[in-house]
Amino acid sequence: MADYKAPLQDMRFLLNEIFDAPGQWASLPGLSESVDPETADAILEEAGKIAAGTLAPINQSGDEQGCQWKDGEVTTPDGFKEAYQTFAEGGWVGLGGDPNYGGMGMPKSLVGQVEEMMQGANMAFGLCPMLTAGACLALHAHGSEELKEKYLPKMYDGTWSGAMDLTEPHAGTDLGIIRTKAKPNDDGSYSISGTKIFITWGEHDMAENIIHLVLAKLPDAPAGPKGISLFLVPKYEVNEDDSLGARNNVSCGSLEEKMGIHGSATCVMNYDDARGWLVGEPNKGLMAMFTMMNYERLGVGIQGVGAAEASYQHALAYARERIQSRSPNGPQNPDKQADPIIVHPDVRRMLLKMKAHTEGSRAFITYVAQWLDQAKFAEDPEAKEKADGMVALLTPVAKAFLTDRALDTCVIGQQVYGGHGYIREWGQEQLVRDTRITQIYEGTNGIQAMDLMGRKVVGNGGKFFELFANDVADYINANQDDPAVADYIQPLAAVLERLSDVTESVIKAADGNPAEIGAAAVDYLDLFGLTAEAYLWVRMVQAAAPKAENDTSGFYTGKLKTARFFFDRILPQSVALAESIRNGGDSMMAFDEAEFG
Amino acid sequence: MADYKAPLQDMRFLLNEIFDAPGQWASLPGLSESVDPETADAILEEAGKIAAGTLAPINQSGDEQGCQWKDGEVTTPDGFKEAYQTFAEGGWVGLGGDPNYGGMGMPKSLVGQVEEMMQGANMAFGLCPMLTAGACLALHAHGSEELKEKYLPKMYDGTWSGAMDLTEPHAGTDLGIIRTKAKPNDDGSYSISGTKIFITWGEHDMAENIIHLVLAKLPDAPAGPKGISLFLVPKYEVNEDDSLGARNNVSCGSLEEKMGIHGSATCVMNYDDARGWLVGEPNKGLMAMFTMMNYERLGVGIQGVGAAEASYQHALAYARERIQSRSPNGPQNPDKQADPIIVHPDVRRMLLKMKAHTEGSRAFITYVAQWLDQAKFAEDPEAKEKADGMVALLTPVAKAFLTDRALDTCVIGQQVYGGHGYIREWGQEQLVRDTRITQIYEGTNGIQAMDLMGRKVVGNGGKFFELFANDVADYINANQDDPAVADYIQPLAAVLERLSDVTESVIKAADGNPAEIGAAAVDYLDLFGLTAEAYLWVRMVQAAAPKAENDTSGFYTGKLKTARFFFDRILPQSVALAESIRNGGDSMMAFDEAEFG
Repeated sequence: MADYKAPLQDMRFLLNEIFDAPGQWASLPGLSESVDPETADAILEEAGKIAAGTLAPINQSGDEQGCQWKDGEVTTPDGFKEAYQTFAEGGWVGLGGDPNYGGMGMPKSLVGQVEEMMQGANMAFGLCPMLTAGACLALHAHGSEELKEKYLPKMYDGTWSGAMDLTEPHAGTDLGIIRTKAKPNDDGSYSISGTKIFITWGEHDMAENIIHLVLAKLPDAPAGPKGISLFLVPKYEVNEDDSLGARNNVSCGSLEEKMGIHGSATCVMNYDDARGWLVGEPNKGLMAMFTMMNYERLGVGIQGVGAAEASYQHALAYARERIQSRSPNGPQNPDKQADPIIVHPDVRRMLLKMKAHTEGSRAFITYVAQWLDQAKFAEDPEAKEKADGMVALLTPVAKAFLTDRALDTCVIGQQVYGGHGYIREWGQEQLVRDTRITQIYEGTNGIQAMDLMGRKVVGNGGKFFELFANDVADYINANQDDPAVADYIQPLAAVLERLSDVTESVIKAADGNPAEIGAAAVDYLDLFGLTAEAYLWVRMVQAAAPKAENDTSGFYTGKLKTARFFFDRILPQSVALAESIRNGGDSMMAFDEAEFG
Repeated sequence: MADYKAPLQDMRFLLNEIFDAPGQWASLPGLSESVDPETADAILEEAGKIAAGTLAPINQSGDEQGCQWKDGEVTTPDGFKEAYQTFAEGGWVGLGGDPNYGGMGMPKSLVGQVEEMMQGANMAFGLCPMLTAGACLALHAHGSEELKEKYLPKMYDGTWSGAMDLTEPHAGTDLGIIRTKAKPNDDGSYSISGTKIFITWGEHDMAENIIHLVLAKLPDAPAGPKGISLFLVPKYEVNEDDSLGARNNVSCGSLEEKMGIHGSATCVMNYDDARGWLVGEPNKGLMAMFTMMNYERLGVGIQGVGAAEASYQHALAYARERIQSRSPNGPQNPDKQADPIIVHPDVRRMLLKMKAHTEGSRAFITYVAQWLDQAKFAEDPEAKEKADGMVALLTPVAKAFLTDRALDTCVIGQQVYGGHGYIREWGQEQLVRDTRITQIYEGTNGIQAMDLMGRKVVGNGGKFFELFANDVADYINANQDDPAVADYIQPLAAVLERLSDVTESVIKAADGNPAEIGAAAVDYLDLFGLTAEAYLWVRMVQAAAPKAENDTSGFYTGKLKTARFFFDRILPQSVALAESIRNGGDSMMAFDEAEFG
């Protein structure tokens, strides 16, 4: 298996040359003191080292060995405990956490890059700090001061990890019908009973304690999603002096056998009058979870980018080394029996599809992360409101579009290897198996599409959509005379118009026929993602063009050529998606059940 | 995991109502005596029973247990030996074999349906008879009468199995550079030495003997693909009286750890002066392999259809049972907490995409199989020549388009299950892992696309393509006034024109710039496949329409509605593919190597 190399140059290009992240950081009071370009650079550098040096080397062995369950205890694969120790001691878990509780207060635009490296090096491992950070966010936003002071510092520093306990055997997408119960005790705590499934890192041996955030129903709760509350349930109770107390009645009943991410524990968790504490208000648990969801969903998109980057790196190395057949333009390697496969047009097509999506996706992550930072730290209410809208709109796209394209990318990366791609040893098939989960968890990609089309677009009559469309249109208007982007301004305007047209037509069609939302949703999200990446590729061209003239590294000229490939060979999909959406939902809703077979 | 149900109704619909297979059989002298509609029907019925009753029940356990290697011996998963016995005794291995050597002489249009059921029920198992049948074909076409009499009967009856030994560690796509050597012995045999990898069912415990067809180089062989010969190397030598003799010096060095098809053994095979016999002429081994390739490649396409069908059956059953959330049109299941997910538009979109591709692909297989039968059995030289051209043209499409869409279909079928789709227990993730190999082996799908675009289209100036285009155009001309297909004739004509246009433009562009072939190839194959399926969906509509009026089963009305979905929501992709191809290969060939990263 090829090594993992942190894509630092591309990350710096995005932060410094495209998005002026240092400028944003300096302008936001909550950030201006915690981060500056030098600090950011040092963090990227160190994160790259830990990803490549500590996490990547145990990725394949973690997959082979998997987590093991015995009598309720979960043993992690060799090396995971030590890696977790290193990771926690480096302060990485609390990188984006609130400094008032021991976090490092870094912006998401930077934290997102760090996450990409961790996830790209070892997704199974990366899930543990990702879920801890997510649990911290929910606790931070909704927990009482007492809970925050008690739990956040040890979660930020990795001594304790976090887990999110939502799904039940009969309730996944539809959390409104969960059955886990919470009975109030006299001392202000609650007794939680029920069974949760698919709980990532719900039990393991890497941290001293595990803090579960659990959705459950109070005795008097109304039916449906408005009767769900959120509880904090620690594996070990925590004494007044912060030492660990009694073992709580929460236990891991078994691990799931799954397709991938074998290095991570996917747990069935049993609650038998486990002691918990309410987080936030009664019956507002689902709302509290959604606070965290925007971050987690972006985090899943980031997992996709990390995996795609890893697959691309391996495929590129293999395409340069593997010799097989001759170039259509005659031998390029005449002293050997064959040419390296990178000379073949179709291998180039595969590599460029991977490169275009991976780099476009990284840009998209950074774009969304900046809006998240704006939403969190902006003081101007109008700026904050706009940023909130953008985050709400873009998050499902980041989650679903980036993971759908990540699976495509990993499948292509496996294909470059031919038969060897199907063999475990080379690591490419693991990336496919691991990445596949990103399209499913934290809300399936179909659910993301419904969220986008239903809640975020139709739900407000296109108000959020206008924010995005204006951002792109403003860019077009401001830059249409720049010769650097002359080739791309018109195609960008065309795809934006295409997206705007179908947005309008679905909003109209959904009025009186709500099924049109679900019928359009997945194709619409795909079209949205392509439009956003087209926009970001033009911005990358604009930044790369002046440096391309004297570029001997190939980085900047490579950007220009990858953009050309994106517009020539990927963006045409937008035409098909728009046509498919315009054809409406009749063909799927007209079916009687018997007609399915 | 849901049961496997043989899709007999759809197979009969294709054979009897679309393609008039009985008419073709009766018209071909080599077939008219071996098959009639009653025989065919009985064969389908029995094949369905063995697929559902014998092979499907050991599919999941076979994946979990896998084949085990010890000291050169390979032990198959529990139940495989017994199932193989049943399968062989039923005469299924030699179903399409020459009756002069004990085969049943059945047409491919029928055998293809049987293969789909076997592969859909258990792909890992299905590979064994598939490779045996392939080896028989090559032997039948090129072996001496002595070899044929000695080996074919026991291979047809399953006593012995077959394997194809082509790939070496450094030589996959590029077989011209293989290193395995064959030295002539005084007795007319050859001593074969070398190492082969990725040999499917190269060693196992289900059959008494294993007959390897091995590519190797004679001492005086010219370099490259024109210096390769084909040899028959049995695991055990065969005595004059057909009893087994000495163990030959061919042995299995290890099994590959792979992504899926764990029930099958993927072997490293070592040859150490193993005794073999030349099949066909010296240095014409690659040609001899290609005889078999059209069948094997169609067989791989069939594997895709089988897996897609299985995934669809499971997904449909789950979508009907799983209750989650409410329909956008209000509760459909008011006495339960939620509606079955089949009410949701996006779940319907997923199911219909699966159904449209699976049924379209089955039609495509049958269409190609009929041309194969025509090529094999037609007596009129002109009819035979046309059929040969069609087979050459359509085979790479069947292999690559059907397996690419099969992976999509299996991924969708997994997605319908949400989180449960990622868990082993339900079987959907196994279908994804198993199906993934079909895009890789027997020539990667990229290689198929190059074969189509380079050899089959550009290579003869579009002559074969005209055969296909005329077939579709003739249909359009003959049926444009049929009200049953009025909605579809124009879109079909449009997509045919789109395909014809890009065919012409690539032929032109490739003149002087051969890289344009590889640059266009994969998109072109995809566009070709969509066009072919559009054509076949119109034919299915035409046959179903008269029966739909009084259809209470949903089968015929379902066909009409699935066609509508195909044209509304899938066929638009053809526009994007054509645009992408028209944009040419400059964007991929302009890259310097350093610019890839």
